Amino acid sequence: MSRHFYSDLQFELPETRPLVACNMVMSLDGKVTSGGALQPGSIGSAFDLQTMQVIRSHFDAVLSGGNTVRQHPYYLGVSAELEHARKERGLASQPLSVVLTRSGSLNPGTPLFKNPPRPPIVLTGAAGAASFAPEIKAKAAVDIMEELSPSSICQLLFQKYGVRRLLVEGGPSVNYQFMQAQLLDELFLTLAPTLVGLRTDLTLAMGSEVLAKPREAELVSLNQHGQELFLRYRFRWSL
Amino acid sequence: MSRHFYSDLQFELPETRPLVACNMVMSLDGKVTSGGALQPGSIGSAFDLQTMQVIRSHFDAVLSGGNTVRQHPYYLGVSAELEHARKERGLASQPLSVVLTRSGSLNPGTPLFKNPPRPPIVLTGAAGAASFAPEIKAKAAVDIMEELSPSSICQLLFQKYGVRRLLVEGGPSVNYQFMQAQLLDELFLTLAPTLVGLRTDLTLAMGSEVLAKPREAELVSLNQHGQELFLRYRFRWSL
Repeated sequence: MSRHFYSDLQFELPETRPLVACNMVMSLDGKVTSGGALQPGSIGSAFDLQTMQVIRSHFDAVLSGGNTVRQHPYYLGVSAELEHARKERGLASQPLSVVLTRSGSLNPGTPLFKNPPRPPIVLTGAAGAASFAPEIKAKAAVDIMEELSPSSICQLLFQKYGVRRLLVEGGPSVNYQFMQAQLLDELFLTLAPTLVGLRTDLTLAMGSEVLAKPREAELVSLNQHGQELFLRYRFRWSL
Repeated sequence: MSRHFYSDLQFELPETRPLVACNMVMSLDGKVTSGGALQPGSIGSAFDLQTMQVIRSHFDAVLSGGNTVRQHPYYLGVSAELEHARKERGLASQPLSVVLTRSGSLNPGTPLFKNPPRPPIVLTGAAGAASFAPEIKAKAAVDIMEELSPSSICQLLFQKYGVRRLLVEGGPSVNYQFMQAQLLDELFLTLAPTLVGLRTDLTLAMGSEVLAKPREAELVSLNQHGQELFLRYRFRWSL
């Protein structure tokens, strides 16, 4: 890949927890799925898929929820070319792929577990741990947590795995939880020139309450490629 | 108001129907309501509210659905200053305010009907007409239509009222119908730097099926004011 506008990203890293960013692609009518499918490429372009990897190339870990992983059971990694860029930045060649699942319902036969570049990390509670397929424990690093909250997750990833930069890639409920906990520092948002229209399709953040307003929401950068917009926002919360 | 980036808008007017544009403001997580409220100002800034009027100032008629009107029962007009700009363009001083209602459930005591600058147009079917409050017929031009489809509406407004430029301002179901009918030529989209998060909040277009892809979706212009983005898209459909 030639030089990308996200090749050099600077982050202000917090001292006691990971920086948390979210990356999503959304249609002009606000959907992140199309016909129910939360699949890479269903809303964004091929260039957006490349961009997703360039963004990942800056992060120590990429987290997504069980629903998302069940629909797209792949390691959330980067291409060989980006591995090189990561090493030059002093990062591991691939980000850690982190799955957050309450139910523990994960298929060990999927690519995420069959042949990952690094063992994925599975975060779950006691109920999830009890219902795991046995092969999951052999193929992944499983952390059974008392509380599956965003702040506990941040602390675990920071302290146990040295994660300084955490990228959240959905789904809507996981994104919402990080926003509600006022832990979302940045949002990488691709606005794709498409219309979905289906009323049951999902939006970027979905939870039970209207979120508190961030104290500050800054549009840090704006790039256009074709008819697609690549927006980077930075949030500061009152907490 | 000083010069606005939408002060001069050029449109390619179709010959046999009105040009149709939609104008909406959306949060970063794809919502057009916040806590259920489809109220001007709940998502966008004060500048966005001004911009909404500048956009209206280019249109012969502004249409919205009954749900939207029940939440915001005001004439969809422009300020006195923009009346002047309209006259210079050869337009009536105020756009026609058009309400689309199947149920006919409209409150004649609201500002839209009490003291409008022009009598609003109410489009309804036989059922809606039968259930109108009697004062509605006195205060508005009521058109009882056999079919309340976007194409019938376009034909009626074009032929009976000389509407060459129609602005659709929601709600989500009305927007969806114009997209599904492949009659939406333009979208004015404000992307507000805010997060809503509530899963029941509405998106810009909501209907029963995934929409057909437009043959072309072009980002015609992009303006930034503060942290808010003002995007204009043009669609070309296969029909």
